[in-house]
Amino acid sequence: MRVVVPFAAETPKTRLDGVLSAAERDAFARTLLRDVLSALEAAGHDPELLSTGPVDCEVPLTVDERPLTEAVNALLADAFESGVDEGVAVVMADLALATPTALADLFAADGDVVLAPGRGGGTNALLTRHPDFRVDYHGASIRDHRREADRVGATVTEVDSMRLATDVDEPADLVEVLLHGDGQARAWLRDAGFELQVTDGRVGLSRDGTPLETN
Amino acid sequence: MRVVVPFAAETPKTRLDGVLSAAERDAFARTLLRDVLSALEAAGHDPELLSTGPVDCEVPLTVDERPLTEAVNALLADAFESGVDEGVAVVMADLALATPTALADLFAADGDVVLAPGRGGGTNALLTRHPDFRVDYHGASIRDHRREADRVGATVTEVDSMRLATDVDEPADLVEVLLHGDGQARAWLRDAGFELQVTDGRVGLSRDGTPLETN
Repeated sequence: MRVVVPFAAETPKTRLDGVLSAAERDAFARTLLRDVLSALEAAGHDPELLSTGPVDCEVPLTVDERPLTEAVNALLADAFESGVDEGVAVVMADLALATPTALADLFAADGDVVLAPGRGGGTNALLTRHPDFRVDYHGASIRDHRREADRVGATVTEVDSMRLATDVDEPADLVEVLLHGDGQARAWLRDAGFELQVTDGRVGLSRDGTPLETN
Repeated sequence: MRVVVPFAAETPKTRLDGVLSAAERDAFARTLLRDVLSALEAAGHDPELLSTGPVDCEVPLTVDERPLTEAVNALLADAFESGVDEGVAVVMADLALATPTALADLFAADGDVVLAPGRGGGTNALLTRHPDFRVDYHGASIRDHRREADRVGATVTEVDSMRLATDVDEPADLVEVLLHGDGQARAWLRDAGFELQVTDGRVGLSRDGTPLETN
């Protein structure tokens, strides 16, 4: 099984620009990435990185400047042509809540294609054992991936995991990291001054005591 | 095991007021409720309703006009004083994606207290086998419920389920129902003209072809 983590090395996490500076977004994205790599390793896998640019890391690195979908599909084609053993998994680099247990359930699921939906129509993790399945991360990718599996005649299993469904894109996602995270990303946010802010029964976010807009 | 579904009979789902009329919110909330009751029945349970007012339904009904936390705690105290068998579960009435399988995992989990977190700090379903555990649904309830379990010396298990984590409060939640629902709530939304709207790679919502604001 090849386990690939795609990473956008330049200007990551732009939708956090209201609460983090560019340098902070860069550091936070790399912290999220390290958490995901650690969880995959703890689940017994040897992850590799598929990055748009150089990254300082200790796992095998492929640099491919093409957009996510193209880069992943090139890797899938190459892997299955080379007779990859047990298929290929693609796990997003910003799954701050991913635990070894949640990831192990993904890898243990039956089916030619296994999908872990993300909130808002994304596909936060997938695993394909079918040589013809290709990804399309644009738009409502979970729906497109169901159709693609159908197109190539692959059976599909969807895993039901809040931890895998939570990717970190927007300020509201930081609330989830503070509530449920146990990795470096949560520690990073705490060190940067972020805390939960409960006002009128609604759960929000503050930084250094100042409430932030999370919608 | 008593399985209780709290329901706000008057002016439900106010945060959907930008996309649904008051009468529609009322009808949609009752559709969500019926989906949850059906899923609980399919999981082998006999749910009962704890409502702030009269509801036309075929399951046992308790009307309690007090706020959610007070009403649930009164029921918990009463149930454990009466020597309830196997504990009490409290499942929210707006879990449009709850499947019998996801609910069965909740009921099968070990622990004096079992918690299913909702997005944004809520507790979408819980199960207590401990007579002294009490709820507090105000604010970041998942955090408060962890502390409460600790206070009474109860062991805690958290179930990791995207389906149980998704309650339907805001327009963005309707996207999840359209993408992942398989019950009456999804059919209701489709009949009311709602569809997914994919624009510039972002997944949103439209009604009768007109894009809606989901943030």
